[in-house]
Amino acid sequence: MRVFNFAAGPAAMPEEVLRQAAEEMLDWRGSGMSVMEMSHRGREFMSIHEEALGDLRELLEVPASHHILFMQGGGLAENAIVPMNMLGSRKTADFVVTGSWSNKSFKEAAKYCTPHLAASGETSDGFTRAPRRAEWQLSDDPAYVHLCTNETIHGVETFDIPDLGDIPLVADVSSHVLSRPLDVAKFGVLFGGAQKNIGMAGVTLVVVREDLLERALAICPSAFEWKTVAANNSMYNTPPTYAIYIAGLVFKWLKRQGGVRAIEARNVEKSKLLYDTIDASDFYINKVERASRSRMNVPFFLADESRNEDFLAGAKARGLMQLKGHKSVGGMRASIYNAVPLEGVNALVEYMKEFEKDRA
Amino acid sequence: MRVFNFAAGPAAMPEEVLRQAAEEMLDWRGSGMSVMEMSHRGREFMSIHEEALGDLRELLEVPASHHILFMQGGGLAENAIVPMNMLGSRKTADFVVTGSWSNKSFKEAAKYCTPHLAASGETSDGFTRAPRRAEWQLSDDPAYVHLCTNETIHGVETFDIPDLGDIPLVADVSSHVLSRPLDVAKFGVLFGGAQKNIGMAGVTLVVVREDLLERALAICPSAFEWKTVAANNSMYNTPPTYAIYIAGLVFKWLKRQGGVRAIEARNVEKSKLLYDTIDASDFYINKVERASRSRMNVPFFLADESRNEDFLAGAKARGLMQLKGHKSVGGMRASIYNAVPLEGVNALVEYMKEFEKDRA
Repeated sequence: MRVFNFAAGPAAMPEEVLRQAAEEMLDWRGSGMSVMEMSHRGREFMSIHEEALGDLRELLEVPASHHILFMQGGGLAENAIVPMNMLGSRKTADFVVTGSWSNKSFKEAAKYCTPHLAASGETSDGFTRAPRRAEWQLSDDPAYVHLCTNETIHGVETFDIPDLGDIPLVADVSSHVLSRPLDVAKFGVLFGGAQKNIGMAGVTLVVVREDLLERALAICPSAFEWKTVAANNSMYNTPPTYAIYIAGLVFKWLKRQGGVRAIEARNVEKSKLLYDTIDASDFYINKVERASRSRMNVPFFLADESRNEDFLAGAKARGLMQLKGHKSVGGMRASIYNAVPLEGVNALVEYMKEFEKDRA
Repeated sequence: MRVFNFAAGPAAMPEEVLRQAAEEMLDWRGSGMSVMEMSHRGREFMSIHEEALGDLRELLEVPASHHILFMQGGGLAENAIVPMNMLGSRKTADFVVTGSWSNKSFKEAAKYCTPHLAASGETSDGFTRAPRRAEWQLSDDPAYVHLCTNETIHGVETFDIPDLGDIPLVADVSSHVLSRPLDVAKFGVLFGGAQKNIGMAGVTLVVVREDLLERALAICPSAFEWKTVAANNSMYNTPPTYAIYIAGLVFKWLKRQGGVRAIEARNVEKSKLLYDTIDASDFYINKVERASRSRMNVPFFLADESRNEDFLAGAKARGLMQLKGHKSVGGMRASIYNAVPLEGVNALVEYMKEFEKDRA
């Protein structure tokens, strides 16, 4: 029996995708091979790769000015790969820190430059808000401005994306890519690990504007130099072929759901249901300001934290899995990515109400 | 119908592994989740990870002095990751170049040091031999000596592994790991992409001796710093969980085959069959000296190269797939990794004999 999976990533996958992957495992469409046995340069895999790229470009509305790269190493690796590709001759980059992930990006950049903290969303309650553009204090000549548009651990999402003109905006979109439309033209670079809304862990999405490919430092490993990766259509080194195939199946599934605008409406509905339940009483607490509340990752606390284990055990007994909060913040977290169905969120809020009634 | 797959990597997988992966795709052992949906820090995936590590340690006979890491980026990324982790305060590293792959390693290292060419296997016929230890001319104080113990493109394998004493030996074992026993204690570092004998593309094996973890350069990305990866049991960044799961299934399969010594005997038999067929006439040519002939990758040429397309078409019609040689050398290449059954090699040599008889 399948459970409802609220993991922060790796996370729930659409069941249709898993069924198709299982069916095609031994023989992909009459090729006599599994996708994982195919040469990445063969006709069969090339068609899988091109179709995934095309569908993603359509879903994300990526303009022709931007390359789509499939890389490896996840968001954490990009924390170093971004400055190695973007600094050029500049000595600083600016960071808007809204939680754990952008903070890690800020710290890692110090290996390559003197990063500047342009704004912080930290308050006495921890990271609870996304600073507005008017609050950002940019340095004189930053190579780029880094933003994590959705903080997986703190549940802080940035909804207003500013236009920075000539300064390239770099965004870590790992945990909400494809959950809502993004105006890609406003970004110099988007990157993200796949293991939330794209597919399985092991492939990293990078969307980069053509004119930004000329800034790599000499120490940037060739396999992670975007210009080299782009020139080789993500096949400079052997790509994670099966992870790209699975991503392609997810893109097809998302198109069948009506695309990003349709899934956004469902994500609004799912997250509203959960936040409304949290806000309806003092039994559950979420401290993030309303305008910055993530639609993907909903951290919440029991007012009485001695009941945490009790809450998790009861949830598990109903097949509501992986609800424990990140160890750095504690409490609970429900990650409700695209592939988590409304029924899953309904089952969760029903359980939360009953748990509250029984213990109140 | 399944074909016989001679791809150089990604390559043939054991059919039993694919069947099990398909069966477990929607619900791994009653968990209600696919492996690709599991948190990497959850009990279920941790057990998969630990079992894969344990089985690999047993199969490769990795001593307690060495860590086993699962990373990302493949062998090509390691060409930069190795010097960034190994140089410390030294200014050079030594390279034994036996083909395309070690040549790429040699060139990439120039981003971080002044690499020294200690020996080359290049002859007037291209890369056709592995220089013996007596031929290696080491520099005065190299940080390490790099060797590619099996060259996938040129089909050159190094069988005699020297003991370099205090100088760490670093080996790219991508395309023959687990095909024969290796005395791991002789190596400071072993690395390799998974997509030949370990499983699917997207996970990179690194085996590194504990005392070598202190040499990383400050510019080494945290996600690729072996010390950090080792301290976090390969979970500093989200690991490629599904690729690790598949590798674990391959390790179990290999144990059922009798382990590395048993598979080596089969690899000797398979490669002998193929080389004997090539050597039996002037119709087929392999230029690698006998003592350096790879048991995994067998490149060969038709004496009359105008028949190449004809040969490949006839092979395909019999379900003998992906036999085209690498574009940099041309001709044919049969990669006969662990998962390619003896029946596959039998079918290939039978076809080769008939093709020769029909055209001679």
